This record gives sequence, structure tokens and C-alpha cells, in this order.
Amino acid sequence: MPLSQAQQAEIEIARAARTETRRATVPALEEMLFTALPVLDHGFVRVIDYMGDDAAVVQAARVSYGRGTRKVSEDKALIKYLMRHRHSTPFEMCEIKYHVKLPIFVARQWIRHRTANVNEISARYSILDQEFYLPRPEDLAAQSAQNRQGRGDSLGTDQAALVLDLLRDDAERTYRNYAWMLNEEEAADHDPERPGLARELARMNLTLNTYTQWYWKTDLHNLLHFLSLRADAHAQYEIRVYAEAMLDSVKAWVPGCYEAFADYRLGAVSLSAGMMAVVKRLLAGEAVTQEASGLGKREWRELMVSLDRPEA
Amino acid sequence: MPLSQAQQAEIEIARAARTETRRATVPALEEMLFTALPVLDHGFVRVIDYMGDDAAVVQAARVSYGRGTRKVSEDKALIKYLMRHRHSTPFEMCEIKYHVKLPIFVARQWIRHRTANVNEISARYSILDQEFYLPRPEDLAAQSAQNRQGRGDSLGTDQAALVLDLLRDDAERTYRNYAWMLNEEEAADHDPERPGLARELARMNLTLNTYTQWYWKTDLHNLLHFLSLRADAHAQYEIRVYAEAMLDSVKAWVPGCYEAFADYRLGAVSLSAGMMAVVKRLLAGEAVTQEASGLGKREWRELMVSLDRPEA
Amino acid sequence: MPLSQAQQAEIEIARAARTETRRATVPALEEMLFTALPVLDHGFVRVIDYMGDDAAVVQAARVSYGRGTRKVSEDKALIKYLMRHRHSTPFEMCEIKYHVKLPIFVARQWIRHRTANVNEISARYSILDQEFYLPRPEDLAAQSAQNRQGRGDSLGTDQAALVLDLLRDDAERTYRNYAWMLNEEEAADHDPERPGLARELARMNLTLNTYTQWYWKTDLHNLLHFLSLRADAHAQYEIRVYAEAMLDSVKAWVPGCYEAFADYRLGAVSLSAGMMAVVKRLLAGEAVTQEASGLGKREWRELMVSLDRPEA
Amino acid sequence: MPLSQAQQAEIEIARAARTETRRATVPALEEMLFTALPVLDHGFVRVIDYMGDDAAVVQAARVSYGRGTRKVSEDKALIKYLMRHRHSTPFEMCEIKYHVKLPIFVARQWIRHRTANVNEISARYSILDQEFYLPRPEDLAAQSAQNRQGRGDSLGTDQAALVLDLLRDDAERTYRNYAWMLNEEEAADHDPERPGLARELARMNLTLNTYTQWYWKTDLHNLLHFLSLRADAHAQYEIRVYAEAMLDSVKAWVPGCYEAFADYRLGAVSLSAGMMAVVKRLLAGEAVTQEASGLGKREWRELMVSLDRPEA
Repeated sequence: MPLSQAQQAEIEIARAARTETRRATVPALEEMLFTALPVLDHGFVRVIDYMGDDAAVVQAARVSYGRGTRKVSEDKALIKYLMRHRHSTPFEMCEIKYHVKLPIFVARQWIRHRTANVNEISARYSILDQEFYLPRPEDLAAQSAQNRQGRGDSLGTDQAALVLDLLRDDAERTYRNYAWMLNEEEAADHDPERPGLARELARMNLTLNTYTQWYWKTDLHNLLHFLSLRADAHAQYEIRVYAEAMLDSVKAWVPGCYEAFADYRLGAVSLSAGMMAVVKRLLAGEAVTQEASGLGKREWRELMVSLDRPEA
Repeated sequence: MPLSQAQQAEIEIARAARTETRRATVPALEEMLFTALPVLDHGFVRVIDYMGDDAAVVQAARVSYGRGTRKVSEDKALIKYLMRHRHSTPFEMCEIKYHVKLPIFVARQWIRHRTANVNEISARYSILDQEFYLPRPEDLAAQSAQNRQGRGDSLGTDQAALVLDLLRDDAERTYRNYAWMLNEEEAADHDPERPGLARELARMNLTLNTYTQWYWKTDLHNLLHFLSLRADAHAQYEIRVYAEAMLDSVKAWVPGCYEAFADYRLGAVSLSAGMMAVVKRLLAGEAVTQEASGLGKREWRELMVSLDRPEA
Repeated sequence: MPLSQAQQAEIEIARAARTETRRATVPALEEMLFTALPVLDHGFVRVIDYMGDDAAVVQAARVSYGRGTRKVSEDKALIKYLMRHRHSTPFEMCEIKYHVKLPIFVARQWIRHRTANVNEISARYSILDQEFYLPRPEDLAAQSAQNRQGRGDSLGTDQAALVLDLLRDDAERTYRNYAWMLNEEEAADHDPERPGLARELARMNLTLNTYTQWYWKTDLHNLLHFLSLRADAHAQYEIRVYAEAMLDSVKAWVPGCYEAFADYRLGAVSLSAGMMAVVKRLLAGEAVTQEASGLGKREWRELMVSLDRPEA
Repeated sequence: MPLSQAQQAEIEIARAARTETRRATVPALEEMLFTALPVLDHGFVRVIDYMGDDAAVVQAARVSYGRGTRKVSEDKALIKYLMRHRHSTPFEMCEIKYHVKLPIFVARQWIRHRTANVNEISARYSILDQEFYLPRPEDLAAQSAQNRQGRGDSLGTDQAALVLDLLRDDAERTYRNYAWMLNEEEAADHDPERPGLARELARMNLTLNTYTQWYWKTDLHNLLHFLSLRADAHAQYEIRVYAEAMLDSVKAWVPGCYEAFADYRLGAVSLSAGMMAVVKRLLAGEAVTQEASGLGKREWRELMVSLDRPEA
């Protein structure tokens, strides 16, 4: 359960409040607002606030005075044009803010995206909750044999059980010792005779699957860049599920941008000069082999996969 | 007149529309929304959209689940604390978007602030309007004798009139020639026999006081940094008036942050180690002179001005 | 002539000095160091400083202790892999600094790239030189009929001569009036009876083809992104020639990265999901038409151009 | 011991190589180049590369053609002026690159500074070494009673020993289980019958005091901002010691900038409008109390500390 009852109640109160605004409003995203979309065993993604909509992209591209009176089809065509030609600045004119609960090792990947605003709970100041990520048995996979940076087949039921026991035991023990070192007054087993260790030190005993939380805010252009990398099949599963939850919010928020993004980014393929030369030879009817292609083995395989010819 | 009737009508239509939202809404800023605050002779600043309010800063600092139920006085104290100790990230959680019309030479100063999103009208694509900035006679000042980067006394009525004639004549002639080179079909004096010069080339004939426009979006932290530099007495008058108009919008939007900003930034003074040493000697009753202060002349003068002792 | 004799002499003195260093040094770039590569009629690009080389990219990707002892071929393969899979951070570990002299309207395009460090000469503080860009007659082109943001055929000798006269006259007159308003003591026609207008105001009378200068520093990743946009055929000619001069410096500096960049960026094509579907149908031997392709006319044309089938 | 013999040997080889360059070179920093400055029990900071020197700041501020021929005293005065008036862009023209080995919980604080380039070793790809931070007994302090985000008195010998045992045991056990789950072929106890868990998953069992490494590159302006926050007395000890080691490298690299930084940043005090009012009243001879000061208790105390009147 990612949320306590008190937290759920706070969210309900926030959802109940309505005010009137002159700003662009997106009913489909309003519907999701504040609600926690569950991710992994204890994590979530919540949309906290947003600015702009599909029309705001168009409006910025045209530097216009009003909301614009052109046809919806023209707006959609312009959004597609902007996306295809990588005119990124109009997409920067929309902004979104999320509240995310995620394991620390996922947070460490995520934070590499620098063009965002972040407020994380501080373990110098607060005590982290006893919540840590434990994968589902089917997600416990062996190291990939092909890819030094990825996972292969599932471990199997017995091995998975062993691994899970280790992960659980270590997380529980290190947390117990964290709490013992803190020796907080509020704790059930508080010992008034013993000084508590400073929080900024005690936290070092926690494992990397401990959950943390942050507010994370970014513009639509940078969000789409983040999602194109993190919703990708090469991304680690544990961050990909967050990206997928966020993709749903993008779809509700800016459907026109989402569609263009799906076509020109998520589903697009970048072919190098060498790959393009091969495609042209194939189209001319030549039977090109890897050896004769001028491409390395790895690049050849990537091209063949893109062309749905994995056997080649 | 910064706005045409058609533009004013578009704004009125946008202002008339209201929707319901779950997001934080600020009535005082809603009241200003879309309206053009006039700046200089043809320029303006319009608030186009915003995200967050004073409470959103507090909420992000606490990484909280709801809007928070604490007392207003606690929230205000926290905002002050964050501002005083330069905890800037919670202020990044609010965002605002402006539409600004401004002379090109002002735009060139402004754009140096890189942590913002910008969409400017493109003179490769569009034809700029015949509007250029002409200072009021009283704003035409001589080069400062003290400061190589500033202005001194007003030129006086006669000289100002001469200068204004030159500025007006040159701007009008260069614009006329710009339009002649473009030879647009829509123009009254269009000559179908003559090819029009590409817009991306013709624009080079315009003077730097020609007005341009952009959408400019930034977060509250970076906006306050911009305003602390550009609403300062050392900033050029022509950008300062924009900063002052924007300060009004900040006051309406986030009054708690504005108050803290006024106290800890706008009204604050940074005293160097050397300056602090002098202040302590003065407080101890010593009659310190510049020569005995260890400070350079310029720094001494700056300190004395800060202490309201300009005669010292 | 982009450089005065005094400037040329300063550059020669700087070039003559040598010191010993433990840092990675690139002889081919050292050879170019400080020299002005002429661009347009009065502009230039000069490499002022650099940090890193091809090996520094590899070293950062491996977070290694020494300069690395692996084979050159392994390093090259790693660079290609990083470029192909958009692992951009190792390329950020090289840095380069340029001194550029360029027309103001080009500077305004350039500055949109925000991830760079810039120091521009200040016309609040200094007096700009009387130098402005005048295109060669063959570069004076008409507005493109196809592309609202581009140029088409050349104007022709007679029209070009008319346009050049206008551009020259207006630039000379506005500069003359700029100098008159400034009324600098050093000027030949200085009038001691008349106060000079503040520099920060007088500059507004200059035209956008006036030359300015700046120091511009960025990392290799962001430089390559800049070059991929500005050395592109769709970029305005007047900025493209700067990008091309800079490409030469990149080739001298990091030949391995340059090669990967040429293959995977400059020469690469991004095909949307819809375009890839068409390519697969073509490869399967189907005779696809635009109408049956599912692509819009514009996208279809772009795809056919990429496949060297412009007639389709 | 932060370095293995093999690593030390690699560093020595890199240090032994010299080449000739036309670039600005700083002998005092060359002397430190590549050498590991030890920090904490297993960490270090190594300067890997640098660009620019004090003169490069001046050169950029003047946008000059050569290295400049003015007096050293003029250059120093200009640097001070730039620092005092927060003209930050010339300081951005120098760049430095470090290799840092640091505990993960320190890395998580550090990475919040977004204006830097980072390459961290990937625990998806590599296996982390068995090295974790264990504080010296005297650094194990209790939670501060005054400051919810800080540490107070030392725990005392007995308590410190208990805490250290816990930290060591937990780090060793979780690492042992990490290695068991990985079941690498190279391991002494490798079990060929058992599949190894993917690295990207196994890492989640490590504690936050495990050491990681990165290449970290930034410009001088952003470095000084980082150091002003992290070399400050309010920063956590474990990051402060890194900042202090880096301060030494800055002192060697750009002594003129360092001096200005020490005076106008490190040793400077920012007094709010309210604080300045109190200082003026004190200077006028008034006996101001907190109650009559208009300042809150906390702000009053901060002011008194700044004025060396802690008793007030």
C-alpha cells in the first residue's frame, strides 16, 4: 500500500476543492489530479499541478495574443511539424509537477536528467519510513549474456525465493539498526540514557532499495525527452514503470503532442548515413549482406531489427 | 498604443472564459491575467499563465501529500527561512509565463538569463511591425561621468529634440527600405515586376529600437534572480521598467514570497569580510577613515552609502 | 578585413608563447589556436582554448584512473557506440572556447542555444566599431516560394545592386548618427559644447547587420547539437558559414568524435513510425503511393528525398 | 587506502607525460594534476583537467584579442570588481574536471548542483568495490538539539564503538549478499550451478555508505557557488571535507579569483533590510534590543553572531 489512510484523506480533501480560473484547463488531467498512480510495490506517481495544454504550444509557436481561433486540424498539423523538425521551444511552454515515491537506486538514475526542478525529502532532517522495494519473483532476472548492461531470463522460483529472503532480511536489519542508532524519543523502544545518532549520519546504513519521495517539475519538452529514454525497452524495468505511468498522464494532458511524440519519437528510428546507404541498396533490389554492408555486426543487427528482418 | 483593436478583442475573449480547476488559484493574479501592462511607448508585459502559489512553495519544501493544514503564520515563517538561507529549490516549484513586447536592444540584455523558456517571433518567417522605441525627452541622458556603464544628467530640451529627430528619421527610413526590399504582395506599393528580398535577409536593415515580442516562461526562483538584477538601480532604465511591471505581478501572485524577497534580496546588502571588519570597528566606537579601513576607495564609498553616511 | 594590424599582432604574440603541460594536448588544434578563421565579410571564429580530446571521452565513459592503455580501435568503437545510443554525458567532458565576430542578427539566432557560456562586448560600456555585414550579390536571394522560412533564387545583378546600396547607405547613415549622438572626446569632429548621449541609449540607432563579438564556450555534446542544427541545409546561410568553420575545428580537435558525429548525426535520418512502415512496404516490393502511404504530403516528400527518390 | 597499486601506477604514468601547448598553463595546478587528495577513509579528489587561469577571466570580460598586456594589479582589481558586483559570466570561462570517489549518500547531496557534467560508474554495468565509509569515532555525533538538520556533541567512546560495529557489520553483510547474488564467474566462491542476479538488481542491497566514483566537470562560477554552500559551516561534515580539498585546488589554479571569493563570498555576510536598519541604529548609538529591533529571535541571533556580539 503506497499510501497511509491519513495521506489518502489529505489527497481527498485536495481533490474536493474547486476554484474558477481563466487559465487553460484540461478536464482529463483534472480527473487524475492528486491521485496516486501505484508503481512497484510501494511507489506512486501523482500529478500535483500543470500549466498549459495543446493549444498553449501552438499559441507560443505563433506568439499570439489570444487563445487562437484557428481550426483544430491546423493546430494538430502545426504540432506535428514542430515535433518532426525538432522545434523544441514551444513544447517548453507547458509545465507539469509530479509527486513521486520511488526506491533510492531509481532516484539516482532519474536525477541525471538535470533540466528539472526537484525537492526531495531530506534524511538529514526527517526519518525515512520503513519501506523498501522488493521485486516480484518474476522480475528477478539473471544478468544478460548479450548485454553487459541489462537483464536476461528470470531466475526461476527457487532462486528467486532465496534472493528475496536475502533482500528482505538485509533491508529489515539495516532499517532496524538505523532506528536503533537514531533512538528517537517517539520510538517505542526509546532509551533515554543513550544519545541518538545524528540523522544525517544514521541514514548511511540504509540500503538502496529504501523508498524516498520528491516533487519533480519539468517542462513538456524535457519530460518527453526523459520519457523517450526511460520508457524505452533498454531502460531498467524499475524506472520504466514510472515512465509508463507518466506517459498516461501526458496522454490525458496534451493528446495532440502525445500523438506526435508517439509517431516521431517513441516509434521513430534514427538511421545513420551508413544504414541509409544499405536501405537504398536494398530498395534498389540488391541482396546486401553484413559483410558487404560497410556496417559493423552490431549496427547491422540493429538495422535488421528495425526493418523487421531479424533473421538477416 | 501597444495593442491594436483586434489584439485587444482577442484578449477580452480570453479573459471572459472561465473554467473550474482543482489547481491552486490566485484571485489577485487571475484579475491581471492576459491584460497588457503598458511599458515604454509601445511595449507591454502580459501574464499568460501561472502554476502554484505561496502554499506550493511550502508544500514542496515539506514534500507533502495535501495542501497542508498548518497556520498561515507558520507558512510565512518557513518562506522567510527558505529565502534567508538561500534554499532555492522550493521557489522553483512555481512557474509563470509572460508575453512581452520590447525593443530588440532590451531583448538582447534580457536573453542573457538562460534559465528560462523563450519563443520569440521570427523575422525569418514574419514581417515585423513598424514600431520602434523613442525615449521620452527626459529619459535622454548623457553618458555618466562616474560610471562608464550608465547615464548621467538629462540632455536638455534642445539636444533631446535633435536626438529624437535623428532616432525617428533613421528608424522610419530603415523600416521603409526594409518594406521596399520585402516588396510583399499585401503592400500598398507592391511592385509585381520586382522580386522581394528574403525576410531573413531584409531584417538586417532594422535598427535595434525596433520592437519584438516573445513568450517568456520561468520559475519563481529564477524570476526573482532576474528581478533582483533588473529592478536594481544599476540596471538600464529601459529594462528596469519591465522588471518593475513584473514585480507587480509577483506581488499579486505570491505575496508571502514577495515580502521575503523584498526584505532578504531587494533591500539586503552583502558586506564583504573587509566591510564587516569596518562595521565592527565603527560599532566599537572607532573613527575609521578610508585610508585606515583596508578598503579600496570604491568599496569604501559603497559601504558608506549602505550605512547612509555618504559624506564619510 | 576582419582584424586590425594591432589585433593581428596580439594574436601572433599569443601564438608564439609555449608552455609545458601534463594535460591532454591535440597538435592539430594547437596549430589553429588563436588564428582567426574568416567568416562573411568582417567576421571570424577563433579557437581560444580547449579541454580534452577523443581519449578524454573514453576515459570519462570508463571513469578511469589513467589515460587508458586499450587499443585505438577499441576507443573508436566505444565512441561510436556512445554516439549511436545517445549516451551524451561523456561528450560533455570536453570543452572548447571560441572568440567570434558576427552580425547582431546572427548573434540573436545563436544565443538561443542556452547551454553555453557567453561574454559579449557591451555597447553600454564600449563603442561598437563601424563594421556591418553586406552580403555578396549572389547571396541576396528572394523569399522562398515553398518555405515561408527560407530563401529561394538569387535576386539577379541589378536588383542585388539596388538592395546593396540601400543596406550600405542605411548602415552608414545610422552609424554616423550614432557617432554624432555619442560625441566622444576622441572623435575627430568632437563638439565640446554638446553633451554626448549615453552609450546605452545611442546604440539603439544601429542596424542589425552591425558586427558584435563574444567569447563563447561550450562542451562537445552541446557544440555538436548546435552544429547539427546550424550546419544543416535549413539553417540560414549567415549562421551556417560559422557552423562550418567550427566543424573544421572539431575535425582537428576530436577526429574520432567527428567521424561518429558525421555518420550518426549529420548524415543520419530520423524516420517516424509512419515512415518506417512505408519503408518496410517498399522493401516487401509493394508500390506505395503518397495517397496509400498514410503520410501527409509534406512528410511523404521528406521521406522520398531521404530515399533519393525525389520524383516519387 | 583510497588507491590500489595498479591505480597509483596508472596515475604516475599519466603524471610523467608532458607536452607543449599554446594554452594558458598554471604551474601550481599542474603540480597537483592527477594526484589523489585523500578525503574521508577511502575517498579522494583528483584534478583531471582544467581550462583557463586568472587572466582568462579578465580576457573574457574584455573580449580581448590577445592575453592582454595590462598590469597584474589592474587585472586583480577587475576580478574583484566582477566578483563584488556579481558579474558571473567571465568566471564561467574557466573550467575544471575532477575525478571523485565518495560515499553514495554524499553523492546524492552533491548531484543536486545541476550545472555540472557528470559521468558516474554504473552499477548496472560494473560491480562496485567492497569499500564503504566508516566515520572516525570522534565524527559520530548526536542529533543537534538546536538545529533539526545538523549534529551536536560527539557520542562518546562507548556509544561510538557500538555504532561503528553496527555500521561495519551491516555494510559487510549486505556487500557479501550482493556478491553472492551476483555469483560472478571471477569470484572465488563462484557456483556454476546457480544463475547470477542481474547487476542492476543486485545493487539495491548495498548501503548508502558504499563508495561510488565520478568524473565531475564544471565552470569556475558554478564551482565557487558549490563551494560557498558546501565549504560552509552548515554543510554536512562528510561533504565539507570534499569542498575543502577542492578549495585548495582553486587556490592553486586561480589565486586572484580565490582571494576575491574569500573576501566577497566566503567571508561576506548578507544583511536583510531589517538587519541593516538595526546596524544603522546601533551605529547612531542607540541600545537596540531584540524586542525593539523588528527582527525575529532567530534573525536577531544571526545578526548578533555576524557582529561578534553573541551575548546580545
